[in-house]
Amino acid sequence: MIFIGERINTGFKDVKAAVENKDADVIKQTEAGATYLDVNLGAVSSKPEDLCWMIEQVQAASDLPISIDTNKSVMLKEAVPLCKKPPLINSTTAVDEKMEAMFSIVAEYNASIVGLAMDEAGSPKTADKRVENAGKLLAKAMEFGINPEQLFLDPIVMPLKYMQEQAQEILSGARQFRLFSDPPPHIVCGLSNIANGTTQKKLINRTFAVMLVANGLDAVICDVTDEDLVNALLTAELVMNKQIYADSYIEAFRS
Amino acid sequence: MIFIGERINTGFKDVKAAVENKDADVIKQTEAGATYLDVNLGAVSSKPEDLCWMIEQVQAASDLPISIDTNKSVMLKEAVPLCKKPPLINSTTAVDEKMEAMFSIVAEYNASIVGLAMDEAGSPKTADKRVENAGKLLAKAMEFGINPEQLFLDPIVMPLKYMQEQAQEILSGARQFRLFSDPPPHIVCGLSNIANGTTQKKLINRTFAVMLVANGLDAVICDVTDEDLVNALLTAELVMNKQIYADSYIEAFRS
Repeated sequence: MIFIGERINTGFKDVKAAVENKDADVIKQTEAGATYLDVNLGAVSSKPEDLCWMIEQVQAASDLPISIDTNKSVMLKEAVPLCKKPPLINSTTAVDEKMEAMFSIVAEYNASIVGLAMDEAGSPKTADKRVENAGKLLAKAMEFGINPEQLFLDPIVMPLKYMQEQAQEILSGARQFRLFSDPPPHIVCGLSNIANGTTQKKLINRTFAVMLVANGLDAVICDVTDEDLVNALLTAELVMNKQIYADSYIEAFRS
Repeated sequence: MIFIGERINTGFKDVKAAVENKDADVIKQTEAGATYLDVNLGAVSSKPEDLCWMIEQVQAASDLPISIDTNKSVMLKEAVPLCKKPPLINSTTAVDEKMEAMFSIVAEYNASIVGLAMDEAGSPKTADKRVENAGKLLAKAMEFGINPEQLFLDPIVMPLKYMQEQAQEILSGARQFRLFSDPPPHIVCGLSNIANGTTQKKLINRTFAVMLVANGLDAVICDVTDEDLVNALLTAELVMNKQIYADSYIEAFRS
């Protein structure tokens, strides 16, 4: 399982103040087993130099690769070259101009990218539409010489409380993404949206996450410091035979 | 979700002593939301009158229907007529003589039955073999005028620790059972076998249970007093859109 630690410091009014907490946040996520650390400027700034500065701060605190949380290619052109390890770009949609701008950066820097299974029409309502959008993403990525393992397809998670029938469309979409190629693209999601507005956020997050793993999910953007969630995902991967069972499988991950 | 409360009082050396605990056990399982209560004589006795006596004791303590845990038709012929509500018989295999003896009782008393997807050759190793055995069970049941909703197909859960590759075969088998008929047969399992010998029994039980629900499971033989397990299963059913979301969905189940 590829764990992408949820965004660091988004929404802070003052970037300077944010730094004070960031170190602790970065280290906590690193120790909790994150594979990537998501860096996001939020609404604080749209200046590339601020994003670059944040990336440098995070890289000073952790050796983990960065997930750069922006869909603006002008930001990425500055930020990606600074990354010590190939970053994950989060994200593009299946819109032609967007894909072309983003995939050229991915290809140049051997980066990876999250491809959202949505297009000009907005969020998909059916499994079929998710598959159509995801197929466009993979096809366009291959035109740029990007291999499937650099592409993280996201079926677009919708809130269970408000769009309950979407959950099965998401699971069914993810299941079909796995069949696109061999080796398959990664399947990722921004998990927390499933539990939006509910009274049982953690329980719903981890239950849906486990069901997604049963349908091919192998990467997740989540709160990596939620131990119950991480343990559930590790266990789901054992069931899928992606990790070999050992009595100490949880301790082994944490160490 | 149909919750079948794990066996009451099996393994007790002395049936008489067992009764002392049974009342508490029955009431605890009833309050925890069991749909059926599993009654099992274990190795204590093979006398039909002892099974009948136990069923009467349980029926005195709870209004829930009984799951009669025996594969002996000689026992069932005595026990089934005593049940105040149509019982679930647990279980038959896909062996012809066994099915014929059991299904004639099921048909006569409008009971239900667990059909284990195994045959003379023993436990199945592949999803295909599970599907073949389950198909035999459904076809034979229909010969007896038993409808699919009276049949609880069990894909045979194997221990993750010792047969890790079996988990996916079980999930894949269950997924295919759903396609047999419309309405489909129930899909059930004896859950706890998945975690046999492991250090994380409850975590593995509930993670696998959730993955099974994603593949069609709608009934489970389990420890219904394990709250985390029951909450995970209730949540999984919300994801599958089998229950309508309400903020109080867990409290609603418990009350």
